This record gives sequence, structure tokens and C-alpha cells, in this order.
Amino acid sequence: MDENILSYLKFDEKGLICAVVQDMEGKVLMVGYMNREAIEKTLKTGKMHYWSRSRKKLWLKGETSGNYQFVNEIYIDCDGDAILFKVNQKGGACHKGYYSCFFRKYKDGKIEIVEKKIFDPEKVYKNGSEI
Amino acid sequence: MDENILSYLKFDEKGLICAVVQDMEGKVLMVGYMNREAIEKTLKTGKMHYWSRSRKKLWLKGETSGNYQFVNEIYIDCDGDAILFKVNQKGGACHKGYYSCFFRKYKDGKIEIVEKKIFDPEKVYKNGSEI
Repeated sequence: MDENILSYLKFDEKGLICAVVQDMEGKVLMVGYMNREAIEKTLKTGKMHYWSRSRKKLWLKGETSGNYQFVNEIYIDCDGDAILFKVNQKGGACHKGYYSCFFRKYKDGKIEIVEKKIFDPEKVYKNGSEI
Repeated sequence: MDENILSYLKFDEKGLICAVVQDMEGKVLMVGYMNREAIEKTLKTGKMHYWSRSRKKLWLKGETSGNYQFVNEIYIDCDGDAILFKVNQKGGACHKGYYSCFFRKYKDGKIEIVEKKIFDPEKVYKNGSEI
């Protein structure tokens, strides 16, 4: 574990930083929040970890679903208050069964679902929620 | 102005929502924050507007630099607490002179600048900061 990256990051008053996650083709999969421990565990394991603001606990993405995100590249923004991960997504990123959490498109005053479900969240998350 | 989109969005306790902005090739340009007015003005004008948390004011991206972001597509995430804009970026998005704010890559314990500056921020922002 290299300490270096933490010194470049600005965590907010809750100790969190905004993480944008996209796949290697550039599709944005999700936005999550990370605390220092989530950053450290992500670097150590190569799998995305987040801080769940709803469940108030550290969260390994895929711990319930098996839909892990394997880190390939990491970028830090100019202000150090956002971090970008390029990953290989196993299965789908979205707890609603889609590949990306951004499966709803807004156009001309309407919301349209533009992806197909790739798994059944009822089956995948039957033992617990993972949001 | 269609009211519809606002009903899908969850603003935080400060009245803000996280906006991820990427170009049409999938490169993530920046993360910004928007309040209701920023969303409305963005939809009305087709140019990205943000709420500047540092200057505490509404901000038309490009108002100082001319580096406007023209909106092409809008996506909302599953929880409605993040919004993704696909844009055409005029010039560079970053106030430090780079095309993307994510011009720093972290690898093997080191931070490396992986883009070339495409404009001189001293000249472009001489009449005021735009962050």
C-alpha cells in the first residue's frame, strides 16, 4: 500500500470522495463514494470498494452479487476531489439488473430506459441488498 | 423547460447533485455539481451550467474561457443522485489548461501527468477564475 495517492485526494467533511467508474470502452457504469479505507482496500485488492452512505459501511462491490469491478487505471482530477477508475466490470454494475447505473436517458422531456436487464436483481441480491 | 427531469433527481442536503461529464468518445472531462437552477439553465440553453461550491454561484462553463460544453445526451442513474452528460467540449474542460480534469494518472505509487496542456490558463482566465 502506497500512501502517496491519499495525499493528492481531498475528502469532504464526511471523509468521502466522489468516484466515477467507467469500463475500458468508456461507458460510465456508476458514481460511488469512497473513504480512505475504501481507497486503501481498492488499491490493495484491485477490486472496487466503496463507502455505502445508506448502509454506513464499507462495501466490496460484488460481495453479494459476484459482480466485481477489477481496477485497470486510476485518474485524479485537477482539484483532487474526484477520482476516476477504469475497470473491467463482471456482470452488471447496477443493483437494478443493468450493466450501467445510467440506464435511463432523458430526451425531449421524456425518460427512456435504454439498456436491457442482464440479470434478475431479485435472484442475485436475495441474501441482502448491495447499493 | 420540461419539469419532468427534476422529479427524477435527488438533490442532497445542500440542494446539489453530482454531474459527470464526458465527451462523445467516452473520455470523462470533469465532475461538477448542479442545483435545480443549473439543471434548468443547462436544459434551456444546451450549455452546461454548474453550481460553483467555492464561489457559491451559478456558473456557465465557458463564461470566462469560451470553453463551452454543448449537451448532446443526458442520463440519470438508478438512484437519481447522479446525472451524466455527454457533450461536445470546446477547447479544454480543465481550468489548468488540459482537455480533461482527469489529466493525472496514478500507477505503481506514482502520479503522472498524461495529457498535454492545450491552452494557457494564465491567458484564458486573466479576468477571473472559473473553477
